[in-house]
Amino acid sequence: MSYLDLVRRRGFGDFPVPDAVVLPGDPAEAQSIVEICARHDVGVVPFGGGTSVVGGVSALRGDKAAVIALDLARLGDLVSVDPESRIAVLQAGVTGPAADRLLAAHGFTLGHVPQSYERATIGGYAATRSAGQASSGYGRFEDMVSGVRLATPRGEWKLGVAPASAAGPDLRQLAVGSEGTLGVITEVALRVRPVPEVRRYEGYVLDGWENGTAAVRELAQRHALADVTRLSDVDETEVSLALNDSWKTKALRRYLRARGIAKPCLLIVGWEGATKREVARRRQDTTRVLEPFGAVRIGRTLGESWRRGRFSGPRQRDALLDNGVCVETLETAAYWGELNDLRDAVRAALTATLGRAIIMCHVSHAYETGASLYFTVLTARDETDPIGQWRRAKAAASEAITGIGTISHHHAVGVDHAPYLAAEIGDIGVEVLRAAKKAVDPTGILNPGKLL
Amino acid sequence: MSYLDLVRRRGFGDFPVPDAVVLPGDPAEAQSIVEICARHDVGVVPFGGGTSVVGGVSALRGDKAAVIALDLARLGDLVSVDPESRIAVLQAGVTGPAADRLLAAHGFTLGHVPQSYERATIGGYAATRSAGQASSGYGRFEDMVSGVRLATPRGEWKLGVAPASAAGPDLRQLAVGSEGTLGVITEVALRVRPVPEVRRYEGYVLDGWENGTAAVRELAQRHALADVTRLSDVDETEVSLALNDSWKTKALRRYLRARGIAKPCLLIVGWEGATKREVARRRQDTTRVLEPFGAVRIGRTLGESWRRGRFSGPRQRDALLDNGVCVETLETAAYWGELNDLRDAVRAALTATLGRAIIMCHVSHAYETGASLYFTVLTARDETDPIGQWRRAKAAASEAITGIGTISHHHAVGVDHAPYLAAEIGDIGVEVLRAAKKAVDPTGILNPGKLL
Repeated sequence: MSYLDLVRRRGFGDFPVPDAVVLPGDPAEAQSIVEICARHDVGVVPFGGGTSVVGGVSALRGDKAAVIALDLARLGDLVSVDPESRIAVLQAGVTGPAADRLLAAHGFTLGHVPQSYERATIGGYAATRSAGQASSGYGRFEDMVSGVRLATPRGEWKLGVAPASAAGPDLRQLAVGSEGTLGVITEVALRVRPVPEVRRYEGYVLDGWENGTAAVRELAQRHALADVTRLSDVDETEVSLALNDSWKTKALRRYLRARGIAKPCLLIVGWEGATKREVARRRQDTTRVLEPFGAVRIGRTLGESWRRGRFSGPRQRDALLDNGVCVETLETAAYWGELNDLRDAVRAALTATLGRAIIMCHVSHAYETGASLYFTVLTARDETDPIGQWRRAKAAASEAITGIGTISHHHAVGVDHAPYLAAEIGDIGVEVLRAAKKAVDPTGILNPGKLL
Repeated sequence: MSYLDLVRRRGFGDFPVPDAVVLPGDPAEAQSIVEICARHDVGVVPFGGGTSVVGGVSALRGDKAAVIALDLARLGDLVSVDPESRIAVLQAGVTGPAADRLLAAHGFTLGHVPQSYERATIGGYAATRSAGQASSGYGRFEDMVSGVRLATPRGEWKLGVAPASAAGPDLRQLAVGSEGTLGVITEVALRVRPVPEVRRYEGYVLDGWENGTAAVRELAQRHALADVTRLSDVDETEVSLALNDSWKTKALRRYLRARGIAKPCLLIVGWEGATKREVARRRQDTTRVLEPFGAVRIGRTLGESWRRGRFSGPRQRDALLDNGVCVETLETAAYWGELNDLRDAVRAALTATLGRAIIMCHVSHAYETGASLYFTVLTARDETDPIGQWRRAKAAASEAITGIGTISHHHAVGVDHAPYLAAEIGDIGVEVLRAAKKAVDPTGILNPGKLL
């Protein structure tokens, strides 16, 4: 849920509820339900883990008289594993931990660990173009998808027969990111990898944000990224250290000062692999690139503690809300040449609307051509109009992003980003999506009011 | 051009010609031409290097009274280079060698070397989902595309603002592979890489096709593929050796027999990198995986001679045609679990229709989950009905592929593969493509009769 969802549930404003929750037991039942809903003009909102932070699973009615939540919790099976091709077919309702548990029985893992890992589902990952914290090593979720099965008002739609194809446009990449508007994803065929035998997570500190992003860029362009590569800016690093304010942290601060680091930026790097040798070698690749950037190694403790706590962020929000804090995140991505300007622009936009605020930023996904930026914002909640307060800040940040970066690197569009989609894909792009939707969902029952 | 195109030009049957050839000087002129053609209901066939082997640039009229070839030869500029982001924007008419020449001035290369390299263009690569011979190292063309600019009847359409995005479906992947039916690609933003300082190409021999494909699979799944990785089956290896029938080849045959290789399959591997050290290290990764498969190293001569001759294949066809030979290629891809069965099925289908024929096969593109198969077929030409002869063979092979592999790994759909597209993407997929086309090209002027 987003901050606004949480605020609404604390008595500010309404939130839409579905008229019924329907739980199909298999893809065929999901298909039947979609057809019945089409016949009776009832809206269908696919529901997986309910972790959308952009309103993706709100039970909006659109022009329909009724709307159901199609809860995919019972689609929890591993359908098949092909160990030779390293492809597993999973049903849409399988959660992150369940997927890894089911696959581990065959020696495999997805390696997909977004912050929503504990609850989010395979179908949701595919529907929203999810990116996990280990995206540098395992790829974004769309890189893993080799096939998709969708329930649509026009019948079942299956995509994906080969590892690569030149048979026209890649329609799998239309299904991935369709957010329930082009069909209910019921099964996904996924590329899997052997469970890593060896994991090593470490912390480094770099002096200054520009220096830090330059180092991450060099890692990406030299193909030396660790599987997890996460660079915090000075503000986020400061908060991380303050939250761990033990004698160890004090010693660390002294050590960094002694090493001449004026503006510490924490870099978490994690490698996963089959053997110690392989991990050691990849680690050497990474550290060799980091050296000229003056990276100071601060050991495994911070890396491992990050790894242990990496899914806990969302759970802290309730406590903050209880204490009158407005806390929300937003993310984007841009090419390297524009990344630092984009960060400045978003920070400026947030400060201009919120006034005093803690704005933290990190890079958690890097590519040869650019990277993502993930912002966490904390400010005193405006008790008279908490929803308006964040809406204005989000709008200002989104305006700052438009034209430079993407409106969403891994949170999808949902409701919150819909006003900015046309600026990114063009009016023609929006028309194309509408036309595609009309072709599979002529009466518009699928997730009304989302994406478009 | 395809074999059938060549046969037609030798007096068998008609071939369609455009009513005019129009050469715009820049994207804005291309846009104007598309709009004028839309106004006058004139078909537009985008033309780059003319290297389509599936009828992709035939000047079909559809239901239009006239059709023009929109020759993009004058769109030959490098528009911009962002060395920090490693992105270059190239106009659609730039050929492979021109792209590398223009980029080399900035220290960069695309690394995209399909067999059509000498003539094919940037726009054509993008329109057809081209895969180059070094796809293992540099990726398929679609992996390089970060942005696309298209001229459509509805106006210009620009896509691509970030290295990755969760802003809905990836419409770049709809533009890539659209074969001129969703717009005329006028510019492409591409991820570039530094020109490699060191290149090393070598030959290995593996005993037997199944053993060979297992080795390539292991390379792909262990992330140890060389940038170029090309495995020939026994028949293709035999022809390669026969064509090089020098004393050296005789010695090689003796050497392989002495090493106990009964069914030699030639493996060409090539690494490209910044330093000797880097290439040596990657080479070590590759050879370490190859060892347990009994790969016998046969030195650099065959590797280098393959590299030098790698674009010459198409030029040999005329001589073969003069000698009454039917010579054509076809390709597909499948997941590893089905790859060898697919090869058998295609061979059986070709043999059943052609009778005595030389059928050679190689893997030239490998992925974690599967690989491509590329077939070369030689047989005596049926002089009474050469077109029918090949059409029947191609139809039989395509039927054998349907349901197991993709109808096209890197040759696109054009006219030849259109009848098999629905089996791959479903009737709903075809409807979605038609709807997308209708949205950008309401009167259907863009490349009539192609893809769909």
